[in-house]
Amino acid sequence: MSDAAHTAMWERLDLDIEAHDALLAVLGKFYGDIYLAQEGRLKGAEYLDFVLSEVHGLRIKELQEAKAAGKKIVGTFCVFVPEELTLAAGAVQVGLCAGAKAGTEQAETLVPRSTCDLIKSFIGFKLARLCPYTESCDLIVGETTCDGKKKAYEAFGRLAPMHVMEVPQCKAPCDHALFRAEIVRYKEALEQLTGKAITAQSLAEATKTVNAKRRALGRLAALRAADPAPISGRDALLVNQISFYDDPVRFTAKINELCDEIEGRIAKGEGVAPAKTPRLLLAGCPMAVPNWKLPYLIESSGAVIVGEESCIGERNTRDLTDETPGDLEAMLDALCARYMKIDCACFTPNDERLEHIAAMAKRLGADGVIHYGLLFCQPYAHEAIKVGKAMERAGIPYLSIETDYGLEDAGQLKTRVEAFVETLS
Amino acid sequence: MSDAAHTAMWERLDLDIEAHDALLAVLGKFYGDIYLAQEGRLKGAEYLDFVLSEVHGLRIKELQEAKAAGKKIVGTFCVFVPEELTLAAGAVQVGLCAGAKAGTEQAETLVPRSTCDLIKSFIGFKLARLCPYTESCDLIVGETTCDGKKKAYEAFGRLAPMHVMEVPQCKAPCDHALFRAEIVRYKEALEQLTGKAITAQSLAEATKTVNAKRRALGRLAALRAADPAPISGRDALLVNQISFYDDPVRFTAKINELCDEIEGRIAKGEGVAPAKTPRLLLAGCPMAVPNWKLPYLIESSGAVIVGEESCIGERNTRDLTDETPGDLEAMLDALCARYMKIDCACFTPNDERLEHIAAMAKRLGADGVIHYGLLFCQPYAHEAIKVGKAMERAGIPYLSIETDYGLEDAGQLKTRVEAFVETLS
Repeated sequence: MSDAAHTAMWERLDLDIEAHDALLAVLGKFYGDIYLAQEGRLKGAEYLDFVLSEVHGLRIKELQEAKAAGKKIVGTFCVFVPEELTLAAGAVQVGLCAGAKAGTEQAETLVPRSTCDLIKSFIGFKLARLCPYTESCDLIVGETTCDGKKKAYEAFGRLAPMHVMEVPQCKAPCDHALFRAEIVRYKEALEQLTGKAITAQSLAEATKTVNAKRRALGRLAALRAADPAPISGRDALLVNQISFYDDPVRFTAKINELCDEIEGRIAKGEGVAPAKTPRLLLAGCPMAVPNWKLPYLIESSGAVIVGEESCIGERNTRDLTDETPGDLEAMLDALCARYMKIDCACFTPNDERLEHIAAMAKRLGADGVIHYGLLFCQPYAHEAIKVGKAMERAGIPYLSIETDYGLEDAGQLKTRVEAFVETLS
Repeated sequence: MSDAAHTAMWERLDLDIEAHDALLAVLGKFYGDIYLAQEGRLKGAEYLDFVLSEVHGLRIKELQEAKAAGKKIVGTFCVFVPEELTLAAGAVQVGLCAGAKAGTEQAETLVPRSTCDLIKSFIGFKLARLCPYTESCDLIVGETTCDGKKKAYEAFGRLAPMHVMEVPQCKAPCDHALFRAEIVRYKEALEQLTGKAITAQSLAEATKTVNAKRRALGRLAALRAADPAPISGRDALLVNQISFYDDPVRFTAKINELCDEIEGRIAKGEGVAPAKTPRLLLAGCPMAVPNWKLPYLIESSGAVIVGEESCIGERNTRDLTDETPGDLEAMLDALCARYMKIDCACFTPNDERLEHIAAMAKRLGADGVIHYGLLFCQPYAHEAIKVGKAMERAGIPYLSIETDYGLEDAGQLKTRVEAFVETLS
């Protein structure tokens, strides 16, 4: 796809071409430094590099072609939006740009300054006309997982067509009933959007597609227990990030190929870092593209990341949706049951998350846990304290970091991470 | 009650006597400056002064006597806890200390620094052993109205016997069903605590008691439409604050007496401030005792506050519970319906709050609206922006202030408030 064709497409989407060009230039530089400069990368990483190089290009072209063929595009910010339903309605689901500073000043006219960068980012990308995904969407689906997003969607809903799903805050029967009703309401919104009824057959097929994606990501996650680590944390994070916007069938095939390659590497005892390199589990807030700051700092401090305990990681992939029910109502029950298992900090008390982190650390042979909190994210800030206490009880070294999308604190963070890694060697 | 008897009681409650004495001394000084120094106060304010002077004394003694007689004490932080049920179970409901800085450093070991002062305060009061109310409680009832409180209760629940009610985030039928289930769960918790079944009769009586309190507060709120303002905003706020912990029957009688006096004052054309004094509506976050900083700054800047659009104000008193149902199930339905009307910022979209503010400003003849946001309170920070836009549309002058319990910004705030008031004259 030529540069001119790209630009013409972005103009049709009413992007701010000049600012968007500048954004892509920064992204390219950033990607080069953080990704392409890595040594001993897998051959399968070529897929990741290609997807990233065309993240606002070919994939957007595919979305335009899907739209021309009558398909609808649904944008999301959160793992609570059931992709099974979106696919069953014949729509395409994509994650939306929220991992970089963009349009911050404009965003702060709609949300308080004490709002996390992820929220400011998706609003800023919209107001500054920088996200071709947002501009391609026929519907954007929000959820009530935190005060910040819940209230930000009220403002965002004036800028784009929105549907907000309510996610309950506990896991009692009345909460399951509420989320079951919200699943039905989302199904109806999709049916209205697409003009297509979701049937037991279409939902069964979609569930298989989404589960296959989760299985591929789960396979990758399991392989990372190998020592030496067969893939960098950066690349594994990128795989999880890409899972939110590439075509799910293509993505699943590519990640399974990548896993085949990794198995070969493991069989030969090869890895991306020497044996005895301190192994870290990264836990906490989601890291949307291109929020690679902390993983890069960690992996350039003599450690390797072996797992992501986050929404862009195992929180999104550990649970499969039951494929056995044959009738639609039972399938919707299964969907509800699957999503209500998520150990998001939006739930109280959410003790299962502490168990998951300890179990992941053990399974992956992690020498320590770093908790990443996004500044002003209150739910994960609270849990960072609880995770710290749980890790202390389990005898697992722990570092809690709070930061945002700025690079001003990079030096200070690196010092803290290096000091932590040193204690693990 | 003698000083020695007070101290002996506080020792039995295991308070930190020295720190508590210091706290009361500061509170007394603060009260003297902000309340007793006012001119033209109502005679009925003697009740307020007496209650405040004995806030940790006689009222606590009453609670101890109630406990000795077998009654249970239930502490709350939020207007979503149905006092009707608490009273119907023969228990006493009190609001808990959360309006002053106390034990902040200790609180910050359990909750993030980026937590609002109200939450840090109730945790700090507990950890520093400074609140005789908290120490008198047999049960403390939290709710999930914001991320900060929802997650803070997880830590607080390790320090005190807790029951957390889930408050939904929308107002659809599934949300009403959820809160209806939570009302039943609270009813059962109370029955287990007190060993006493809640009956249609006891609930009907309790509903009458609570409605009578709301009517008295509603009567006071309505009288404040008079010009000149017949009562200071400080005193009216104090009335609302005291409504959370004094005996409801005594309180109702005293406030109705106060209203009688106010009616006399209005008939004579008298008030606390000269006619033409700029009249302000205060909207936003709740102000727990002794959080009087902003009202004091406003009323010492040449304005008078004529209404409180907050949980310690009309948000808590405007809706009555329907007294007509005769059977228990229908009464619980009525409770649910009443509490689900609350226009808390925890709901999305909560547009009814904007309508309420505009209607209050009109009814009370307010010349402007000041929005008070507590630093790190995200729901009200988001709504402050929306309220500002709504006031602009309605042509009502508006000032949004964000502050905390510290006094460091008092000078700066006073300058801003004075400048705002000047534009209204």
